[in-house]
Amino acid sequence: MNILLKLAYDGSNYYGWQRQKDFITVQQVVEEALLSLTKKEVGVRGASRTDTGVHALAQGVFFKLDTSIPMESFPRALNSFLPKDVAVLEAREVSDIFHPQKSVIDKTYIYKIQNSDTRNPLLYRYTAYERRKLDTQSMKKACSFFLGEHDFSAFCSSEATVKSHVRTIYDMDVYLKEDIINIKIKGSGFLYNMVRIVAGTLLDVGLGKKEPENIRDIILSQKREKAGKTMIANGLTLVEVNYNE
Amino acid sequence: MNILLKLAYDGSNYYGWQRQKDFITVQQVVEEALLSLTKKEVGVRGASRTDTGVHALAQGVFFKLDTSIPMESFPRALNSFLPKDVAVLEAREVSDIFHPQKSVIDKTYIYKIQNSDTRNPLLYRYTAYERRKLDTQSMKKACSFFLGEHDFSAFCSSEATVKSHVRTIYDMDVYLKEDIINIKIKGSGFLYNMVRIVAGTLLDVGLGKKEPENIRDIILSQKREKAGKTMIANGLTLVEVNYNE
Repeated sequence: MNILLKLAYDGSNYYGWQRQKDFITVQQVVEEALLSLTKKEVGVRGASRTDTGVHALAQGVFFKLDTSIPMESFPRALNSFLPKDVAVLEAREVSDIFHPQKSVIDKTYIYKIQNSDTRNPLLYRYTAYERRKLDTQSMKKACSFFLGEHDFSAFCSSEATVKSHVRTIYDMDVYLKEDIINIKIKGSGFLYNMVRIVAGTLLDVGLGKKEPENIRDIILSQKREKAGKTMIANGLTLVEVNYNE
Repeated sequence: MNILLKLAYDGSNYYGWQRQKDFITVQQVVEEALLSLTKKEVGVRGASRTDTGVHALAQGVFFKLDTSIPMESFPRALNSFLPKDVAVLEAREVSDIFHPQKSVIDKTYIYKIQNSDTRNPLLYRYTAYERRKLDTQSMKKACSFFLGEHDFSAFCSSEATVKSHVRTIYDMDVYLKEDIINIKIKGSGFLYNMVRIVAGTLLDVGLGKKEPENIRDIILSQKREKAGKTMIANGLTLVEVNYNE
């Protein structure tokens, strides 16, 4: 049986999604919970390799398992073996040809920036903080230049190992929600640190250091140093993944 | 100079407000930040002794200090010495007769309960979780029975050491905000664990184990065992303190 979970987690206490030798990761605690529940060694694969400190409301988790637990009961069953900062929201059976990365149509991330005179410490785990007033209208305007298919080498960490830096951005918006600036971006996929660099570049636009129109040239340059800084990981949350089945 | 701060903190990583010998508390980090900023040993007093894991958006912090730092610059100055989970929101000078507890007119707490089929792990630090569907209308109805001056011995931990258990509740409400049940309670003051026991009793009302009208008898009984359980600390936040100056 091929099973796909929708998984949510607070990434604060994890060294990202992907299993590592000496550090605790979300993948590890999910595999350990599956072992406790099923008494079987189950290897899982994620839709996104979220980094240390990055959160998820909709990580895709794929694995093969023969089980008599009905899918509607599966989240609750597995959640009883998961720590408080990780939870399965949904479980469903998928076909034999389903692939945890190749079956993805799009992914959506939200990057949050607290933009106020004083920082609210109850939000620090889930937002970046910027004291200087940001011009959200300019940031919103800048979004349109990211849309479509581009080589995003300028928005990619030098540590990235993938061959092609071409990705498609389907939708992007900047909006205020209770004094938090939300940068929402939906794309075919994202390069290493891409959303955090996009957020850092929009920060420069919000501060007036860059004009919305500059985004076009930054993309065309394919030069990392033309874009803004890589924002801190804890402002980032994977909020949606859609699949072609 | 008598100074009053409005302090916000995420209580997750602290053993409450009040200084303890072997455990880190919010009072300690504030006093250490004041030492770093002013090079003086400054003892501070809080409006509320929040427990381990309890949060604050408006803790009152009082101290005496001769300083040339203008009050409007004080939050930012002190914040640069505070950890990410603690922040000063406001600072002002108060009179010589100001007292951090006796000058308090009222305090407001909010207790949050996540009431959904699946728990959202990004909220676990700030909410209790209840899977069974709660009847918020009954919980709301129960609020009226708490209003006014009562002996709240039934809603008080046996560890409490104060003489009088008489307190006045000025205002109380239960409302839904993005799938979170908020229990908001404003009173002259609160006994040890009182808000968490009130929340546990309202939980019983929401589950149909108690009727709203039972609250009257529970209060009159003055017996702790008549009330509900003490809910976990991390659902509780001190949100407002008003003073008579």
